[in-house]
Amino acid sequence: MDMRLSDEQQAFAQAARDFALGEFEPNAARWDEESIFPRESFARAGELGFCAIYAPESIGGLGLPRLDATLVFEEMAAVDPSTTAFLTIHNMATWMIGSWATEAVREAWGPALAAGEKLASYCLTEPGAGSDAGSLITRAEKRGAGYVLNGAKAFISGAGDTDVLVVMARTGEPGPKGVSAFVVPADAPGITYGRKEMKMGWNSQSTRPIVFENVEVPAQNLLGREGEGFKFAMKGLDGGRINIATCSVGAAQGACDTARRYMSERKQFGHALTEFQALQFKLADMVTHIVASRQMVRLAASRLDEGDSQASSYCAMAKRLATDLCFQVCLDAQQLHGGYGYLKDYPLERLVRDTRVHQILEGTNEIMRVIIARQLIEKGADLR
Amino acid sequence: MDMRLSDEQQAFAQAARDFALGEFEPNAARWDEESIFPRESFARAGELGFCAIYAPESIGGLGLPRLDATLVFEEMAAVDPSTTAFLTIHNMATWMIGSWATEAVREAWGPALAAGEKLASYCLTEPGAGSDAGSLITRAEKRGAGYVLNGAKAFISGAGDTDVLVVMARTGEPGPKGVSAFVVPADAPGITYGRKEMKMGWNSQSTRPIVFENVEVPAQNLLGREGEGFKFAMKGLDGGRINIATCSVGAAQGACDTARRYMSERKQFGHALTEFQALQFKLADMVTHIVASRQMVRLAASRLDEGDSQASSYCAMAKRLATDLCFQVCLDAQQLHGGYGYLKDYPLERLVRDTRVHQILEGTNEIMRVIIARQLIEKGADLR
Amino acid sequence: MDMRLSDEQQAFAQAARDFALGEFEPNAARWDEESIFPRESFARAGELGFCAIYAPESIGGLGLPRLDATLVFEEMAAVDPSTTAFLTIHNMATWMIGSWATEAVREAWGPALAAGEKLASYCLTEPGAGSDAGSLITRAEKRGAGYVLNGAKAFISGAGDTDVLVVMARTGEPGPKGVSAFVVPADAPGITYGRKEMKMGWNSQSTRPIVFENVEVPAQNLLGREGEGFKFAMKGLDGGRINIATCSVGAAQGACDTARRYMSERKQFGHALTEFQALQFKLADMVTHIVASRQMVRLAASRLDEGDSQASSYCAMAKRLATDLCFQVCLDAQQLHGGYGYLKDYPLERLVRDTRVHQILEGTNEIMRVIIARQLIEKGADLR
Amino acid sequence: MDMRLSDEQQAFAQAARDFALGEFEPNAARWDEESIFPRESFARAGELGFCAIYAPESIGGLGLPRLDATLVFEEMAAVDPSTTAFLTIHNMATWMIGSWATEAVREAWGPALAAGEKLASYCLTEPGAGSDAGSLITRAEKRGAGYVLNGAKAFISGAGDTDVLVVMARTGEPGPKGVSAFVVPADAPGITYGRKEMKMGWNSQSTRPIVFENVEVPAQNLLGREGEGFKFAMKGLDGGRINIATCSVGAAQGACDTARRYMSERKQFGHALTEFQALQFKLADMVTHIVASRQMVRLAASRLDEGDSQASSYCAMAKRLATDLCFQVCLDAQQLHGGYGYLKDYPLERLVRDTRVHQILEGTNEIMRVIIARQLIEKGADLR
Repeated sequence: MDMRLSDEQQAFAQAARDFALGEFEPNAARWDEESIFPRESFARAGELGFCAIYAPESIGGLGLPRLDATLVFEEMAAVDPSTTAFLTIHNMATWMIGSWATEAVREAWGPALAAGEKLASYCLTEPGAGSDAGSLITRAEKRGAGYVLNGAKAFISGAGDTDVLVVMARTGEPGPKGVSAFVVPADAPGITYGRKEMKMGWNSQSTRPIVFENVEVPAQNLLGREGEGFKFAMKGLDGGRINIATCSVGAAQGACDTARRYMSERKQFGHALTEFQALQFKLADMVTHIVASRQMVRLAASRLDEGDSQASSYCAMAKRLATDLCFQVCLDAQQLHGGYGYLKDYPLERLVRDTRVHQILEGTNEIMRVIIARQLIEKGADLR
Repeated sequence: MDMRLSDEQQAFAQAARDFALGEFEPNAARWDEESIFPRESFARAGELGFCAIYAPESIGGLGLPRLDATLVFEEMAAVDPSTTAFLTIHNMATWMIGSWATEAVREAWGPALAAGEKLASYCLTEPGAGSDAGSLITRAEKRGAGYVLNGAKAFISGAGDTDVLVVMARTGEPGPKGVSAFVVPADAPGITYGRKEMKMGWNSQSTRPIVFENVEVPAQNLLGREGEGFKFAMKGLDGGRINIATCSVGAAQGACDTARRYMSERKQFGHALTEFQALQFKLADMVTHIVASRQMVRLAASRLDEGDSQASSYCAMAKRLATDLCFQVCLDAQQLHGGYGYLKDYPLERLVRDTRVHQILEGTNEIMRVIIARQLIEKGADLR
Repeated sequence: MDMRLSDEQQAFAQAARDFALGEFEPNAARWDEESIFPRESFARAGELGFCAIYAPESIGGLGLPRLDATLVFEEMAAVDPSTTAFLTIHNMATWMIGSWATEAVREAWGPALAAGEKLASYCLTEPGAGSDAGSLITRAEKRGAGYVLNGAKAFISGAGDTDVLVVMARTGEPGPKGVSAFVVPADAPGITYGRKEMKMGWNSQSTRPIVFENVEVPAQNLLGREGEGFKFAMKGLDGGRINIATCSVGAAQGACDTARRYMSERKQFGHALTEFQALQFKLADMVTHIVASRQMVRLAASRLDEGDSQASSYCAMAKRLATDLCFQVCLDAQQLHGGYGYLKDYPLERLVRDTRVHQILEGTNEIMRVIIARQLIEKGADLR
Repeated sequence: MDMRLSDEQQAFAQAARDFALGEFEPNAARWDEESIFPRESFARAGELGFCAIYAPESIGGLGLPRLDATLVFEEMAAVDPSTTAFLTIHNMATWMIGSWATEAVREAWGPALAAGEKLASYCLTEPGAGSDAGSLITRAEKRGAGYVLNGAKAFISGAGDTDVLVVMARTGEPGPKGVSAFVVPADAPGITYGRKEMKMGWNSQSTRPIVFENVEVPAQNLLGREGEGFKFAMKGLDGGRINIATCSVGAAQGACDTARRYMSERKQFGHALTEFQALQFKLADMVTHIVASRQMVRLAASRLDEGDSQASSYCAMAKRLATDLCFQVCLDAQQLHGGYGYLKDYPLERLVRDTRVHQILEGTNEIMRVIIARQLIEKGADLR
């Protein structure tokens, strides 16, 4: 057991921090306020390899472990969790295409996605379906040499602004085993994008529903084999949960660092806020909870990297704990700013709004508990 | 001891509910989204007496106890806490003018304020001063038959959209005893309104800083006597804390009722959300915390109405508990909506954003603890 | 609505405080340590009317509302929650006998119970049955002019040390409607008391299982009519929950007052503990939570006194909230004592151990949530 | 970074588990109930190396890292945290003697302590001094070839039952730099042991105050050099905090495993407890919090093993988080047992009582926050 980051890992994290400070920091508040999806920034992230951190080298990815990806995402999320979260989704879709697409599709899309020149959305959730992924009803029917897609997706990050979609659709029987995954160009005939959702946060990502109406998809655009879609989706979710948890850790660290600076500058009743013991205690707890959250994220990422049979449980635990504790840290950091924390002149209220959704998506934190409990009770898993 | 509302009180609350459903409900989301300050709605509230609930009858107020005011504000805040919160501030300023203004000023402003035809802002907080009200530096210097105001105020609700300001300014020595209160027409020469603050919520209220530069105020515009300003401010804060706590209770009740309806309609895994025990437990705790918060608010209002010597402590306790618990209730109600709770199509995210500031203003909840602890420790108060 | 205690109520509470300080305070630690059931103290409590506070005057009870009973029990529990809790059980059983027993039984037992000369146990819970009261299997079979009891009860407070038992037994069909209540002399032939339970706390109350083997009970010992037992039990539980919640409030107040004194005397790093802001904040929260708990208890007691149709829900909310918050207050008060809080020389660790069980019995706090949620969801109750 | 235990580490943990099940499990309840200090069990622990896990091999210690020690202590604490906690204190004292004693003293005591044939107590805390270690007043005055000790110690684990004491005493100036550490035979003339403390838990360890009255100590019994005592004490505390945190993790795991088994066996309303979703969620959170606590402990132990300059901060964070979260897990596990959790027939109430003190000793969790905050604020430490 070795809890230290290697020099390479530290340098990698530092590169991400520098990138985030240069590229996100000056813009994050505006992207939020004006709901701007920063395509060019993703391209610049791609230049540094950040669009394909764990995607295979065969498409230009870095082929790094998940643990290394958390180092990068955490640094970025300290500045802008919304933009970073989209980047993690793009990484996931790129990794899926890099891992399971046919050679033709891999070559057609892989390098451009890895470079951040093209962007990808991930289409799993359906209207009203929430976390019940196995029951999805979007259909892909075999017709001729390909498939025809019909159905609807909801809450799709980047939808309308991205170039390619990874779509889960039913090719067979009801339940998980009848689901397949497809790579679909975002401008394929028959795809309609709905109204851009008005959200509490995550505003630098557009979110739209998508309707598929007789969308023709060539057979080669199938990922893996028919019926493997749910398996891919679950693998994606494991990583997605680590990613979201990482974004919460980063945002909390950013909020906490901001609060620490503010506390040393701001005076009340003739004393810097840092001199008030009750506020010191709050700060101590904030840092403790960030460290604990980060450890859980790294443990989960390690389990996933190791191929541990209980990796999904660790991902669920990390997502549950980190997104809850770190949202509270953001609230605490906001509180330490008093009235100023409520103004958009400071990043705190944005960090609160952005991290709020992390408790909800990629499976709500209630669903995380269902997953953990099922392993403990039905499977008798020994989670330690 | 009698914990029941009278028939009159219930009818009064019902009138408020009807008003809120008719006037606020159809507009609250838009007012928030477009940052609209709904002047006409306040005028209609005035027709029902809601602009001067506890102001004296001499100016057209209802002269009711604080407890009755909480019934009204709670019902309104269930629909729109931001708009309601401004109404509570207007009520406070109107009560101050009705109670302590000279006859000339009372007659000039009182009836119009009570009717909601004119609106008032309350100007206590100064830039960077937070809760340290005793140290305020805006000055009112005696000159000729009146005063000349110089200084700056920050975070003023309604500023720029209201007709009259109740301003705390220093007329004498440093510390609380040198503070006086003035009624100042909002358009008096020398008043400049700053940029409208961009906030996380409370968007139906404009918030602006104000600069006073040689603003001439007639002597008759002094409230009470010189040096009584801090005393009035503290009285105002007691009531203000009850009002804010009430707005949190109302918002939480609104959020909880919305969640309860949603849970019975929304299905996951083939079952209505109401059938999931963990969600039932969450709902049970939400309701329990609302009831507890409401009781604390009513206790504090009663103590204030009774003139209890420890009323300030009860107000601080009510404000601390209710704004914390009820914000959490709003978060829980949002969580129960899953992804939909994050969208502006539903009121949940607005209720979360609006109630967040209640933990911060009228004295942060940290300041509430300072107040309570001081009474317990220095004064040996027996709070039960 | 009037939140004030009358002078009579205050005097009544004061009498209880004086009694508790004189009778319980000098002995509570020893009763706990040596597991002594203080029969004589109950008799002295009886002299003051505390053994039959809400029992009817016809048997010598005070016939007071539940709300008044909470005033007494709270004061006593501040000193010794375990002994007080037994007293509340005795009050409940005495009230049942006073309310529903036949004249013969009422006269035979009522006055002695009301005077505290005889003591009563309440026998509802069965081994392994927990909160599922409707499924009880102890049987009372009609035979000749009376009934014959067979079965077993568990966790019976006072069992082995009391004089009379109120026993719930099945006389009819499965389910709640087949249950009846009986008054059974504690020394009736066929009754066997099991080993005294070794418990974490509540040591001044003996707790034993009871086995009934062909215990003959005269027909006149039936409470009310056949089949009314479950109804009586539920009524008893409502009051029992208020009583237990009250004991938690009292214990928390006692713990908090002790901590406040300790903080002003104890120095660390050259300062009294009262000077440390973080500890001040903790104290402020403790007091706030006690006040909120007490309000909930009084609201529930009022609803029960008023015959409100939702009284059971308010009792469940009060029990849940008060026993949770007040246990935490006891832990906090212990924590404020540092290492001394862990020693039996101070009352803190006893108050922690004693109040721990309040979250468990009279229906666990999980069952409280089931009750509240059922009213909200199935019955559509509007709990405010 | 590698989060996996090696095969050797897993085997080591397994050996500890086997030992604990064989030696502690059958006795823990009795040791608690009868306040038995199990000397022979410590000797048997010594046979397996568990009395000197990180003490140097020169005295027969295993010379292992702190991380490995946590594996052993955690397994033992799952069965008996009180007995294990004493073992950790003995390990600490043995490590101090093995590391800094003169050769003569090291040879005289080291091997016997490492073997568990002799046992050691650690004497830092003084009456009324709490965490303010730098202010200790026990004096060691140079006289002739040795020192003479005068003063008093409090809360000494094992005192009266152990063979040797590591005593912190003042040899010089006020403040930390005037403190030295001594090895003192427990039966040295002039040592008086006070009354055995009556405690809430930790009953298998005797705790007594000690008075030193002209106790003569040879110069060779000084640990290191004069004035190094505080440094040793602080090093000891870092490790001590990890050890206590570890005991909490172990106890929580033991409680949780017990609850999981109970839930699958126990039925309510016709269903096993495992089928109730709200209880499943509680179990999921318990496990999540144990895993997070364990990670924090391992991180802190690693930082200490690495000689990280911020190791003390990580130890403080681990102690704060793990002892708080794991105490709550023990409470939850007790709650899941309903009334049975309150009985001494089950281990839950003992685990609750034993782990309660972990939040208090080795520096209260409030002091932990002081330590963390000081590093963050005064030292500008970057804790991640």
